[in-house]
Amino acid sequence: MSQDQMIELKTDRSRLRRAHERGSYDRATLYSVLDAMPLAHISYVMDGKPSQLPTLQWREGDHVYWHGSAASRALRAMEGKDVCLSVTMMDGYVLARSAMHHSANFRSAMVFGVAEKVMDEAAKAARLKAMVDSILPGRWDSLRAMNDQELKATAVMRIPIEEASAKIRSGGPKDDEEDYALPIWAGVVPMQTVLQPPVPDDRNLDGVAMPDHLSRIRIG
Amino acid sequence: MSQDQMIELKTDRSRLRRAHERGSYDRATLYSVLDAMPLAHISYVMDGKPSQLPTLQWREGDHVYWHGSAASRALRAMEGKDVCLSVTMMDGYVLARSAMHHSANFRSAMVFGVAEKVMDEAAKAARLKAMVDSILPGRWDSLRAMNDQELKATAVMRIPIEEASAKIRSGGPKDDEEDYALPIWAGVVPMQTVLQPPVPDDRNLDGVAMPDHLSRIRIG
Repeated sequence: MSQDQMIELKTDRSRLRRAHERGSYDRATLYSVLDAMPLAHISYVMDGKPSQLPTLQWREGDHVYWHGSAASRALRAMEGKDVCLSVTMMDGYVLARSAMHHSANFRSAMVFGVAEKVMDEAAKAARLKAMVDSILPGRWDSLRAMNDQELKATAVMRIPIEEASAKIRSGGPKDDEEDYALPIWAGVVPMQTVLQPPVPDDRNLDGVAMPDHLSRIRIG
Repeated sequence: MSQDQMIELKTDRSRLRRAHERGSYDRATLYSVLDAMPLAHISYVMDGKPSQLPTLQWREGDHVYWHGSAASRALRAMEGKDVCLSVTMMDGYVLARSAMHHSANFRSAMVFGVAEKVMDEAAKAARLKAMVDSILPGRWDSLRAMNDQELKATAVMRIPIEEASAKIRSGGPKDDEEDYALPIWAGVVPMQTVLQPPVPDDRNLDGVAMPDHLSRIRIG
């Protein structure tokens, strides 16, 4: 992938380093990527081999969170161990005049840290509320309340956002200068994640209206 | 995440196991996920810690491939080592009547294996052609030919699809039976990755038409 137009931000133990010094990028850039897309891939090591968990992440302050079944083999393997969480959005195919300069536009965030389990039950419930409300603002309070058994069956994990990087590529292709004379179509095919109109469940009760929070979901 | 309606396929050293025995799922299901989405996350271990590379994958037969700069620290760290490659598409948010049964519809493929570098230069060029043409059928032959220097600067990696799994969740929420009596809106918000109309590069020559292969790109 061409490094042109790529910005890279690295935070290293809370201190920002700008790897390619392209403009004013900081923690806000990293957070904008995390906040735009819940889908994350978390790498961990099990029996010395790399494994991966695709799951949903959410951010609160300077921590990134995920959750799952308390019995999950992956979550148990991660606890107290190094993990690497990444969020990537592809924003387009970049088509150049040579194969070499083909690329992709994307936004990517990566956070490294030791996975910590949230132990306090009240804190855990508050984190799960924050997760639901981060996607659907206000939905939590409209739901049947979570019970103790459900809370106990759920594990909430987090890492601090201390060692992290963000990479963004945008714009068109960057070809070798002599290749611009060639009659080859170059350009960008933009790509986007979109939400479609909500589909109500067949068993919704008559007269239950579509809640406001459905109009406030955002992705990408 | 609710396990209802989830299918899971595991191939283990070429032999298929069906973990949840939900219908007739096989290698074709796994390949349909890999073939639908080039964006992949590859986990590897560096200095004992998990790391990750977001990149584009493509499949040829029973191997999955990726490429990058021959100087890439990540690719060098992977060579001859265990990696875990995953492709995940989120297909929707699943909204239930309790927080517990909220879920996501998704398609996910994961392949584990020892990363092998393609050494033969002719084979490498053929793989890169296959990559370009897997996204844009026929584009490779329309490009300025790849030169030896470019080929040398590019590393092509692969793993055999022997140890792998696929998971798919689709459909609506599955609530606790007594919760269906509650006046809470439940349903699905479908999600999709879409391509937008191609944007030509400012420096395209006059009269260069948009090639046919642009109408044949598919994603998701």
